[in-house]
Amino acid sequence: MITGHGDDIYEYEDIRINFSSNIYSHADITPLVEHLRGEMDKICNYPEPEALTLEAKIAEKEGIDAECIIVTNGATDAIYLAAEACRNLGLSHHHIIQPTFSEYEDACRNAGLLIQGDADEDTDAVWICNPNNPTGEAIDASGMMLLAREFGTLIIDQSYEDITLFPTMTAKEAVDAGNIIQIHSMTKTCAIPGIRLGYIVTARRFAKAIRECMRPWSVNALAISAGHYILDNGFKAIQYIEDYIAEAKRLRNALDEIEGISAMTSDTNFMLCELAVGTAAELKDWLAKQHGILIRDASNFRTLSPRHFRVAAQSKEENEILINAIRQWTSITK
Amino acid sequence: MITGHGDDIYEYEDIRINFSSNIYSHADITPLVEHLRGEMDKICNYPEPEALTLEAKIAEKEGIDAECIIVTNGATDAIYLAAEACRNLGLSHHHIIQPTFSEYEDACRNAGLLIQGDADEDTDAVWICNPNNPTGEAIDASGMMLLAREFGTLIIDQSYEDITLFPTMTAKEAVDAGNIIQIHSMTKTCAIPGIRLGYIVTARRFAKAIRECMRPWSVNALAISAGHYILDNGFKAIQYIEDYIAEAKRLRNALDEIEGISAMTSDTNFMLCELAVGTAAELKDWLAKQHGILIRDASNFRTLSPRHFRVAAQSKEENEILINAIRQWTSITK
Repeated sequence: MITGHGDDIYEYEDIRINFSSNIYSHADITPLVEHLRGEMDKICNYPEPEALTLEAKIAEKEGIDAECIIVTNGATDAIYLAAEACRNLGLSHHHIIQPTFSEYEDACRNAGLLIQGDADEDTDAVWICNPNNPTGEAIDASGMMLLAREFGTLIIDQSYEDITLFPTMTAKEAVDAGNIIQIHSMTKTCAIPGIRLGYIVTARRFAKAIRECMRPWSVNALAISAGHYILDNGFKAIQYIEDYIAEAKRLRNALDEIEGISAMTSDTNFMLCELAVGTAAELKDWLAKQHGILIRDASNFRTLSPRHFRVAAQSKEENEILINAIRQWTSITK
Repeated sequence: MITGHGDDIYEYEDIRINFSSNIYSHADITPLVEHLRGEMDKICNYPEPEALTLEAKIAEKEGIDAECIIVTNGATDAIYLAAEACRNLGLSHHHIIQPTFSEYEDACRNAGLLIQGDADEDTDAVWICNPNNPTGEAIDASGMMLLAREFGTLIIDQSYEDITLFPTMTAKEAVDAGNIIQIHSMTKTCAIPGIRLGYIVTARRFAKAIRECMRPWSVNALAISAGHYILDNGFKAIQYIEDYIAEAKRLRNALDEIEGISAMTSDTNFMLCELAVGTAAELKDWLAKQHGILIRDASNFRTLSPRHFRVAAQSKEENEILINAIRQWTSITK
């Protein structure tokens, strides 16, 4: 899906506050940016065809074999590679736990896989996002292991794993399970989605099949350099994750208290909300034009309705502006 | 293919001069690098899911419709997308004009296409690289049009179009032909292969099929910004292309005069050479260890032999070092 995602800030003029992507706008990425400014000579050579040096570094940190890691052009590339590898391994029947990120379905369709509305005895693989986009719900590692035992293959997108206090599955657990393809997003964790860097962790037989689908030089040289910097320096874009998650909970509670808004509890920084009156498209348009605020119309997530929208917590002051603006909208659209 | 390409400089220590990729190492990219240093805040937001703004700008320059342009994560991404789109359009029988870049074959195989050794009446599409890697041969636009009329679909990789004095096919000609998928590499032209930026030009029906295979956010934010800069400023990495091509011809002639070396004439900056004695792998290893020089062992190009290697011209002084080093090698391996 090319259009209809969040962070469509380029579609509007004068957006002051962006709640539409799941990225924290106030992450301090100054040291990483400074590092990259000094790495610009890297663009004069081809990147490694496969980012082997970075894979080795991640492997060392996670205590797993480098063969079990494939660095990708963002998590989206990882999703498409996982689908293609499943096809080549004869895993044709896929179930996707909904509502969730639409790219799993697109990737399955692109790879010619059969998408099942319900899982049954024919199901070869199940896709799950944890914590889940757009609901913010998380399942802990032991719950995920139960799911993995239930299904032949489990594809887990852990893009939001570092923006939750919830203990998600480790890379080692994913490799040891043998039937898990685990997707990570380094650029989401570090709030630099513009540079594209993700990776897959999985058992050897899947890793081999995924490598056979890889396109050489798909990860750019600056992304590889950013990955090295992040690991070498234990770089974190959000210093006080507990405070940020607490602020996200405060935002959720405040939104939920507004008459005409129901906000789901969330284990991460973003939350799914539902309007009693009006549509998310109308609210989005009004907020953009009246307040320079961008939210995510979530109506195009499968199983959701035109009344659903998603917001990611920003600073306390900005969240207050959002709360007041939405309160104003509900009062005039009653 | 992940390993076995050129520019494998990361595999060696102390390489002083790199003749192994088709990139000119002395291109002056200072203004572009300065521009990108100032654009670093772009990495904090998602790139456009599809680089529509850049597609519009290329379209305007080329006098074609923006729908007929798809910006990609380097030319390699374009190759894989072209193969997938062909599969989805039912174009199953592909012939690749050899020897050439190995990724056409890998992309066809990955898309489940049937690769034919010879073109025949069942052939749906033919792949050609122009100027061709690794031979450096070019076919002019009218010759290419003859080929296009001969075959159902012609996929032309014009990655080296700006490093030749040969008039290659224009974007408008490719769109008007109706059965051509034309691949361009902006980062090869501008000597910044580390950042990954290419694009496809094609008629509407192919463009639609290619868009259906696209992965969102596949082109990073800095690559998009580089593309805008290149077009806005008419940026060229090689200022004096005539001089550079003349120096490449001088290098070719000098190599061809060495006893035991035969160098093909070339229409671009790189050239294919053949050893009378010994193997390219031995020569490559000796040059790397004795002289800190990296060349491309071309033995893994289909139809070539262990005696073939490829070099891209660098500065006159560096080319002299290469000529003398190879002369030395041939004298000791007689």
